[in-house]
Amino acid sequence: MAKSKTERPVILITNDDSISAPGIKALVEAVKDLGKIIVVAPDKPQSGMGHAITLGHHLRLQKAHILDGVEAYTCSGTPVDCVKLAVDKVLHHKPTICLSGINHGANHSINVIYSGTMSAALEASIESIPSIGFSLLDLSIDADFTAAKHYARIIVKQLLADKKLDKHLCLNVNIPKVVTSSIKGIKICKQSYAKYDEKFIERTDPHGKKYYWLTGEFVNFDKSKDTDVWALKNNYVSVVPVQFDLTNHVIKEKLSKKWKW
Amino acid sequence: MAKSKTERPVILITNDDSISAPGIKALVEAVKDLGKIIVVAPDKPQSGMGHAITLGHHLRLQKAHILDGVEAYTCSGTPVDCVKLAVDKVLHHKPTICLSGINHGANHSINVIYSGTMSAALEASIESIPSIGFSLLDLSIDADFTAAKHYARIIVKQLLADKKLDKHLCLNVNIPKVVTSSIKGIKICKQSYAKYDEKFIERTDPHGKKYYWLTGEFVNFDKSKDTDVWALKNNYVSVVPVQFDLTNHVIKEKLSKKWKW
Repeated sequence: MAKSKTERPVILITNDDSISAPGIKALVEAVKDLGKIIVVAPDKPQSGMGHAITLGHHLRLQKAHILDGVEAYTCSGTPVDCVKLAVDKVLHHKPTICLSGINHGANHSINVIYSGTMSAALEASIESIPSIGFSLLDLSIDADFTAAKHYARIIVKQLLADKKLDKHLCLNVNIPKVVTSSIKGIKICKQSYAKYDEKFIERTDPHGKKYYWLTGEFVNFDKSKDTDVWALKNNYVSVVPVQFDLTNHVIKEKLSKKWKW
Repeated sequence: MAKSKTERPVILITNDDSISAPGIKALVEAVKDLGKIIVVAPDKPQSGMGHAITLGHHLRLQKAHILDGVEAYTCSGTPVDCVKLAVDKVLHHKPTICLSGINHGANHSINVIYSGTMSAALEASIESIPSIGFSLLDLSIDADFTAAKHYARIIVKQLLADKKLDKHLCLNVNIPKVVTSSIKGIKICKQSYAKYDEKFIERTDPHGKKYYWLTGEFVNFDKSKDTDVWALKNNYVSVVPVQFDLTNHVIKEKLSKKWKW
């Protein structure tokens, strides 16, 4: 960690479900005594925004209330905008760590690519701020965050205690939708090759024009036992370390030898 | 390739600068005799949209004109939405390959994460459609695409000729802003660790409220010679094979040994 032993860690918290989502309040409650908490979260739902940033428009930042004694703001942009704006205009320096979530719904396997929650965490890690995105496998607004809070706290404490942390560390943590006592433990995993078999539902508007809604059915193609999907199915909390270097080094070597121009 | 030797390849083309951008027209012109071309592109600029998808709204699809004899549509969503909708509702099957671009502006190094152009290509590769994103290092609407078209054609022909192609192959191709004769060749590279040192410019609106504009200065931290940034600086076309598995396997192994719960 960048901070000295005596200094309180600064914990930046964001999400993609917006500041009014119960999940972000649960995350703040879970870790609020572990450091100085600053919340900068979207002012409206931003699910599925991936790593989008706001380029052609300006951004707004507004004071907000999330929990007594916790400094909080809303941002008019995407989850990634929240992290950028928080560092430059709220904190005026890098926080010790950045936490994102707790997301209402799964972000395992390919979801990591579409998820605003995970993109916010990844953005922090690009900026050399170790980060974690938390997601509960329950889309409901009334989801029970008890187990998620319990495990979020354990993992954040582990992160803060690690004195030899990679500055680009970014963890994708998913929590199964079961009571705390049913969870078997925490597993470090790889991202499963699983995706959605997507179909668009076609409808016709009152003016006779067609429009489309995205729907999809989840399919797991990866049968190995060290994946996040396997861990969650077997009642483990899954932890996947993720990275922003997208280079496929195996293909790079192959093409370097094979393709002649 | 999925298609037999006698069948004409189906080439899906999209971008993030919108159907009216000169760059997508340049790409269609460069490859139009290499297969059956279908264009599905955003109806408005979508730069910086990353891997965003449209979840809370419906999508529209509309016939459009881009070049005589070329089937084209606009989509009201993001670049990733364009790929999904094209496969399900326009083609009704997977195309042979998917091309994205030619982007007005660089998508090397960390830009790959924010780029709608590259996210569209990556989305195709998730769907087992080999893909390429093309970007020219010139933001101008009047950019000269002559060299970019020349090299796009060479690379697409190479892809179509490869009979042992990885179905998830996704290439991030950037073309330097120089005349064709100044380009030294094509280099297979890795993604450089380079990013933007970002500052938000603060302004005050006529009602006395503050707002913020994202600005940034590009900084390359990676001094190795096999990066896209090095290749482009030395007048090579850079080709980075990218992947959607974000797992950091090195950190995964380390944490599995180090962290005890």
